Amino acid sequence: MLGGRYPPVFIFLKCGIITKDNNFEHVTGRLKFVRILSGIRPTGKVHVGHFVGVFENWLKLQDEGNDTFYFIADWHALTTHYEDTSELKEFTFDLMKTLIAVGLDKSTLFVQSAVKEHAELMVLFSMITPLSWLERVPTYKEMRQQITSRDLSNAGFLMYPVLQAADILIYKADGVPVGEDQVYHVELTREIARRFNYIFKREVFPEPKELLSKVPKLLGTDGRKMSKSYGNTIPLITTEAELSKMVMPMVTDTNRKRRSDPGNPEVCPVWDYHKAFGTADKPEEAQWVVEGCTQAKIGCIDCKKLLLKNMVQKLQPIWDRYNSITDAEVKEAMEEGNEKARKVAQETMEEVREAIKIMY
Amino acid sequence: MLGGRYPPVFIFLKCGIITKDNNFEHVTGRLKFVRILSGIRPTGKVHVGHFVGVFENWLKLQDEGNDTFYFIADWHALTTHYEDTSELKEFTFDLMKTLIAVGLDKSTLFVQSAVKEHAELMVLFSMITPLSWLERVPTYKEMRQQITSRDLSNAGFLMYPVLQAADILIYKADGVPVGEDQVYHVELTREIARRFNYIFKREVFPEPKELLSKVPKLLGTDGRKMSKSYGNTIPLITTEAELSKMVMPMVTDTNRKRRSDPGNPEVCPVWDYHKAFGTADKPEEAQWVVEGCTQAKIGCIDCKKLLLKNMVQKLQPIWDRYNSITDAEVKEAMEEGNEKARKVAQETMEEVREAIKIMY
Ligand code: SF4
Ligand code: SF4
Repeated sequence: MLGGRYPPVFIFLKCGIITKDNNFEHVTGRLKFVRILSGIRPTGKVHVGHFVGVFENWLKLQDEGNDTFYFIADWHALTTHYEDTSELKEFTFDLMKTLIAVGLDKSTLFVQSAVKEHAELMVLFSMITPLSWLERVPTYKEMRQQITSRDLSNAGFLMYPVLQAADILIYKADGVPVGEDQVYHVELTREIARRFNYIFKREVFPEPKELLSKVPKLLGTDGRKMSKSYGNTIPLITTEAELSKMVMPMVTDTNRKRRSDPGNPEVCPVWDYHKAFGTADKPEEAQWVVEGCTQAKIGCIDCKKLLLKNMVQKLQPIWDRYNSITDAEVKEAMEEGNEKARKVAQETMEEVREAIKIMY
Repeated sequence: MLGGRYPPVFIFLKCGIITKDNNFEHVTGRLKFVRILSGIRPTGKVHVGHFVGVFENWLKLQDEGNDTFYFIADWHALTTHYEDTSELKEFTFDLMKTLIAVGLDKSTLFVQSAVKEHAELMVLFSMITPLSWLERVPTYKEMRQQITSRDLSNAGFLMYPVLQAADILIYKADGVPVGEDQVYHVELTREIARRFNYIFKREVFPEPKELLSKVPKLLGTDGRKMSKSYGNTIPLITTEAELSKMVMPMVTDTNRKRRSDPGNPEVCPVWDYHKAFGTADKPEEAQWVVEGCTQAKIGCIDCKKLLLKNMVQKLQPIWDRYNSITDAEVKEAMEEGNEKARKVAQETMEEVREAIKIMY
């Protein structure tokens, strides 16, 4: 995974600033790749928002030559979805297949529940984590106030960040690609790492940094937030015909009622998709859309046809790969990833147990 | 462990009443022994209060032919003692040696941290346990109010009963010998069992019953609650000479200032020891103490000499055994117990995972 290529690489400096440095080699005499860790919950079929917001970022970190660990957080899925687990196994399996299809197979891909050490470390971390730290997690406070459709009053929801800290620290990750709402969780992870190292007088855990990347936010086909419960998502794995059925009726700039009405791409959800799927990077196509839209030279149907073309161009290889992978291959990749992750986790746990001076 | 003997045995009827029934054999055609589980935290050297209050009860349950599982709760020890774990391993090892010396080696003796499945089940239970159930645990509320010398504000202290539920349910225990302060914990364990079975539509967990036994409460040598922090405990493993040094200066009925003052055994801590160590069961000796004390016919020194004799009679075989066991034997017994416990725990976890429909 680390061999052969010398791409620009993200370096985490002591002061916490992330710098992009092509010449790091000259500074230290060797290239340094960092351990990256991130996870995704298997709570349903993956949609294009995940691809654009998460997987593309994961891919970039992988292809830059970092030591990337990505996992399917099935225990975390239970915090909010314990009431219906009928498809948990299927979602987990399909997610693994999707990660491979997306091209993440150079990373260590694994399933959280296959590495029991996460639970052990969570139990140990819970002993040194002040409750007050958990009660002030912004997502905890917010979600308990906002979400009433699900039962979030269980202990697991409060303990979520402790399990997450275990997920991250057990691999001694340097960087954690997260969304903005997860920044505090990584901060808490650092605090737990520091507290563990302090209490047990041993530098077992490095402090991970959050890796925030600007990701295009894709709305659902109806112009609302993309959400399974609205039925407005575009699945990542689909066919051109199906994709067309979802893209063509998409909500656009609502001022363009007639073809002759000029529109504004900046307020049109379709333009966000164009940006996410490469149209905006091709000057000619970008100009065609922007001019065509603002001067009413093209219709929205024309615009969406171009989007469809660009989406298919990007997604067809993923679909092809997805459809060619056998279940046996997915299973094999999963077992292999689990084994690799487990080995790292077990090594860390050896250090943890020695630091705590616990028998096992 | 189940072979050969047909002692009276505790039966747990469906209605939850515990009956002692010599004739159960005739009712069902076979004798039914029950699975018993209990644990002790390795937070220091074991004292005679543990022996009288816990181990004697454990022994009784073992010798009645039940399938007894007793474990050293080293993870639980961390909830209150994470700040100083320097002797955790030694305490754990010594506790195992003591349990064997006491005669509990017909039970499955194991160490909690050796059976990682406890942590896994705790994580899963946390997902279905309402926080409100934990916040109303009486010991939680009380201890946070009362104990200021230790930091109890960590998440692990709140999660204690969830880990305890995992400890109990992973062995599908029928009965849990506990002290009065732990009754609510077993109640909570039943609630978690019920909730799991209900949510995942499968009767994975039986509902355990608490086994409350009347135990003689032994005070410390200074007449206060026995506590390591008061330095008033009598260690279980000691020598006759050392024991004498602790018994002879013990606080007695404070009204007996002079030998000629009559006393009252019922308010004398020494009499509690007499009851715990068999004097009270020997009519002649009991009469000698009670009459001698209330009529000022004996001195407290005489009384304590008798106590010492009876204590030594009961404890000498334990000391002998303790001193004859090698470390290698302790280690071997520990590994064997761990292995047996792990096997049971793993079988339960298979069912749990199937019920939840999680991948691993
Ligand atoms: S032409 Fe394109 S960018 Fe303009 S409103 Fe229609 S779909 Fe949106
Ligand atoms: S004679 Fe025995 S029971 Fe009476 S006060 Fe003295 S020690 Fe206690």
